Amino acid sequence: MSTLDQPSQPSQPSQPSRHPLSWLSQRADERRAAGLRRILVPRAADSPLIDLAGNDYLGLTRHPEVVEGAVEAVRRWGTGSTGSRLVTGTTELHAELEAGLAAHAGMEAGLVFSSGYLANLGVITALAGRGDLIVSDSLNHASLIDAARLSRARVAITPHSDADAVAAALAERSEERALVVVESLFSVDGDTAPLRKLHEACRAHGAVLVVDEAHGFGVAGPEGRGAVFDAGLGGEPDVVVAATLSKALASQGGVILGSAELIAHLVDAARSMIFDTGLAPASAGAALAALRVIERDPGLPELVRKRSWEIYELALALGLEATAPSGAVTSIIMGAPEAAVAARDFCLERGLHVGCFRPPSVPDGKSRLRVTARADLSDLETDLIRSVLSDLADNRPSAAAHRP
Amino acid sequence: MSTLDQPSQPSQPSQPSRHPLSWLSQRADERRAAGLRRILVPRAADSPLIDLAGNDYLGLTRHPEVVEGAVEAVRRWGTGSTGSRLVTGTTELHAELEAGLAAHAGMEAGLVFSSGYLANLGVITALAGRGDLIVSDSLNHASLIDAARLSRARVAITPHSDADAVAAALAERSEERALVVVESLFSVDGDTAPLRKLHEACRAHGAVLVVDEAHGFGVAGPEGRGAVFDAGLGGEPDVVVAATLSKALASQGGVILGSAELIAHLVDAARSMIFDTGLAPASAGAALAALRVIERDPGLPELVRKRSWEIYELALALGLEATAPSGAVTSIIMGAPEAAVAARDFCLERGLHVGCFRPPSVPDGKSRLRVTARADLSDLETDLIRSVLSDLADNRPSAAAHRP
Repeated sequence: MSTLDQPSQPSQPSQPSRHPLSWLSQRADERRAAGLRRILVPRAADSPLIDLAGNDYLGLTRHPEVVEGAVEAVRRWGTGSTGSRLVTGTTELHAELEAGLAAHAGMEAGLVFSSGYLANLGVITALAGRGDLIVSDSLNHASLIDAARLSRARVAITPHSDADAVAAALAERSEERALVVVESLFSVDGDTAPLRKLHEACRAHGAVLVVDEAHGFGVAGPEGRGAVFDAGLGGEPDVVVAATLSKALASQGGVILGSAELIAHLVDAARSMIFDTGLAPASAGAALAALRVIERDPGLPELVRKRSWEIYELALALGLEATAPSGAVTSIIMGAPEAAVAARDFCLERGLHVGCFRPPSVPDGKSRLRVTARADLSDLETDLIRSVLSDLADNRPSAAAHRP
Repeated sequence: MSTLDQPSQPSQPSQPSRHPLSWLSQRADERRAAGLRRILVPRAADSPLIDLAGNDYLGLTRHPEVVEGAVEAVRRWGTGSTGSRLVTGTTELHAELEAGLAAHAGMEAGLVFSSGYLANLGVITALAGRGDLIVSDSLNHASLIDAARLSRARVAITPHSDADAVAAALAERSEERALVVVESLFSVDGDTAPLRKLHEACRAHGAVLVVDEAHGFGVAGPEGRGAVFDAGLGGEPDVVVAATLSKALASQGGVILGSAELIAHLVDAARSMIFDTGLAPASAGAALAALRVIERDPGLPELVRKRSWEIYELALALGLEATAPSGAVTSIIMGAPEAAVAARDFCLERGLHVGCFRPPSVPDGKSRLRVTARADLSDLETDLIRSVLSDLADNRPSAAAHRP
């Protein structure tokens, strides 16, 4: 055997017989040890819990007219849209929904996708590519981060809600085209982006402002027209709005709103619309019915903001640390992850389902309860919330106990 | 004025006042000139056209039981799932659907996403990352291409359905982990991937086989259990199945099927599930009802294959060039794009809605009609198809006329 043969049998050869997904079990062990394992807990239709964890901000998911909007759409159009929006997946119902959403937000036109995630992927990859710049807020949603990555544009991440940093990133760029991408209302802290300043920066530097109104549409602004409308930016030719149908509109799907020219471009170029099945008629019908409810009862968005502000003020009065809500979401900061989990379980045992956010979703030491208000919370439910949060404050170990 | 000032005023300065989306109109002009502009044509609920363009393979979109499945789900669960699958977006209905889909395909477990596109993004980015290899068939769907790009793995594209090329790509790799990604039935040519050979290559080289059954689930294999099941690969630990609920199952959404360990990993790691709202109850209910219809009437998948084969044989008998279908789709090759468009319009005027594929979706000179069979085509409809295709063949200009 010559020395030339030596490299052919290393001590750790590739092992074809080894299960190629065996690393999953080790990864699961690591997650378990770090307390980061997640499981799905199916909920029952008749759950007695008060839902302060979901995103049904206006409480329209079981509203009779919204339910009938879905039912009627299923009976009239069938259960599926049957194909891509470009082939058989565009019904008259989709067109009516798009016109209604655009009008409500003060935009020229709209294009509905089967999810908000896909809407964000579609618009950003259709507007930016290699050789362009995307300026992305540090707290942007995963779908915006994935969209920027998928676009192959250069990505500059700016500190949260820092319009000066955005202006600087735009001024320093060598690329001709640039998108500035932010959320209007951020879902964890519940704060609002400085949209006018951001738009000024875009205008000064020839960039497009893309605003994700997932948590703003139907909640922020007069009659829930959104934070972009509220900032006086509705219909501006260099502003693009993304929104979701799955939160205030109690359905599923996403929408891009902008100029008719933009929407025509997306029809030609947005891969996540072209190569996806159109939104199911039931979801289009529910979203349209929800929009009609908001138009007829324009006080609903203000009501959820009021409910949220009440929860925030209650938390402060009880000595809890909380974030001021501009939309439907208040965070109650608990500190360590264990404290947040214990507080979540405390609420759960007393009939309140609240969200629980831990690192990496939030910074270390800022683990929290995420409490979503709903416009349809009854007085009885509000009383229970008051009572449970009060007990939580009383039973909370001293802050010192949470320090590492 | 010193010469040092010269560079500050070039002849083409950046123009902040110029509309930053003005390039869209030029792009639209280019597309128009190339005959590649697309528009959405909303269809009416009572359209008299026979649909041979959509993907409602089993004709279940308006099946009474499927419609009732959706309606009942809306009435019981509301119009939206209200949140991420991890928070409030998992209902008992989702869990029942996942168990049913997994059982039907002979797999251990399943996870439902709000679209097939997102299911593919989720599973591939959760299984492959930087430092891994993805071997991707050259005709894979856009969602699989985007998923591979998003994963940051190295991507090797192999010639269509070439298992030897896949084996070579796996053998030559320096990466430890590799995924082989294919569709089981390809949607344009209607052909089937060589799944057993691909699995042998994966087994020999320690790779995972990911099979997208978007066009196979509910159509291929005994009782529509899919091409993976048909190839004897159901439940293999190194095989992952993706499927859609929007084609044979007449609904919306996607599903990943695999080992319980894989599904648990996706719950922890699939961003497009974690950061997306769960599938709407109506769509979950419709898909579950469609699955029950197939289970009770297991001849449906065979029926759509038979209908498709009849259309193929008819086309051949009429002297048309057509692709042999292994599922529901036959392509009738027309040659030049103009010929395909004219043929599509010819059919449309006579009451048949067929698809029309042109470059870049298909190679130059291979523009075509895409004809989708449905299991519920009536004899009357079949007679009309026969008559229109016969007229089309008679009226077709000689092949020579299409040569450039």
